[in-house]
Amino acid sequence: MKDVDPQRHAERMAIKQRIMNERIAQADKEQGLLLVHTGSGKGKSSAGFGMLARALGHGMKVGVVQFIKGAFSTGEEAFFRDLPNVEYHVMGEGYTWDTQNRERDIEKAEAAWEVARRMLADSSFDMVLLDELNIALHFEYLNLDRVLDDLQARPAMQHAIVTGRYAPKALIELADTVTEMKLVKHAFKDQGVKAQKGVEL
Amino acid sequence: MKDVDPQRHAERMAIKQRIMNERIAQADKEQGLLLVHTGSGKGKSSAGFGMLARALGHGMKVGVVQFIKGAFSTGEEAFFRDLPNVEYHVMGEGYTWDTQNRERDIEKAEAAWEVARRMLADSSFDMVLLDELNIALHFEYLNLDRVLDDLQARPAMQHAIVTGRYAPKALIELADTVTEMKLVKHAFKDQGVKAQKGVEL
Repeated sequence: MKDVDPQRHAERMAIKQRIMNERIAQADKEQGLLLVHTGSGKGKSSAGFGMLARALGHGMKVGVVQFIKGAFSTGEEAFFRDLPNVEYHVMGEGYTWDTQNRERDIEKAEAAWEVARRMLADSSFDMVLLDELNIALHFEYLNLDRVLDDLQARPAMQHAIVTGRYAPKALIELADTVTEMKLVKHAFKDQGVKAQKGVEL
Repeated sequence: MKDVDPQRHAERMAIKQRIMNERIAQADKEQGLLLVHTGSGKGKSSAGFGMLARALGHGMKVGVVQFIKGAFSTGEEAFFRDLPNVEYHVMGEGYTWDTQNRERDIEKAEAAWEVARRMLADSSFDMVLLDELNIALHFEYLNLDRVLDDLQARPAMQHAIVTGRYAPKALIELADTVTEMKLVKHAFKDQGVKAQKGVEL
């Protein structure tokens, strides 16, 4: 991109515009999407909450179930919890390594899934965010087939977002859009920097 | 993870908890972080907006400069623009392939950077989101050195988030935390699904 010719640049951009427009014209299927954010990098949950904000900006109704972070009073919860058009549930009792009780974890996950299931069966929700559901699936706190069945049975126009490391292969196959958040560099792990309010918490 | 022994599970989790706590105890540096979200996958901007929501949930003051998406009235803008503790600027006139005028793009990017620079020099901002700045850098609409200097000169406790594909190598080196959003699967591209409100727009 050094010293590009403005004329050539304009031509390239015109071609790109035409291709984009053709692609958009062809992409005429309207449907609710199943999105998965996984991988070991940052931003899986944050991207889910960003999409929530975007949906709210369009006047859509959203539901949130947090499957793991119950012990934390996070900034997201403080921010979204009492907004109009938001139903917000925090389940579980903190990270699993804080609970050390597999049976209680399973119980909490089951209760959380009941709430999620109700939202996934209710077409008044335009978007449902299932935060850290992948962790609950990874530890087999929930039956994967049941979860996939409930996701697939949701209203045709409803978007569902599933976040967390270790997304199961079958969920990735079912999903429409999957992003792997890949860790390139992490201040907290690499450089002895404390978890920062607004960024990590 | 098939049929784990609950006792063994509890032991592993206890070890993990100890390691986590040790790591957190050692990580006692407080500082503003420079975060970069790059890659060709979804969620780069969304994760930035999610962090914004989180910061607002903690009562922090945030600034946003959108470097590219000027021609769109996006959900994020509708949602965040008029909230308290938010200063929101949309620059540029839509995606570069819509403008076909390199000089105007440069002018717009320069004007956007002036706004960003003011926020980056103002310690009353706890977090500054520079959305799609990487694209402006990639097309060399802005001088990279100047941008990196301004980022580095910001107040010690201020977080800055830079999003967009094609993050320059020097920015990645300067950053504290870098995530590559990697495309695994994309409904829009792979399956002829229209860009969906609340998800893509």
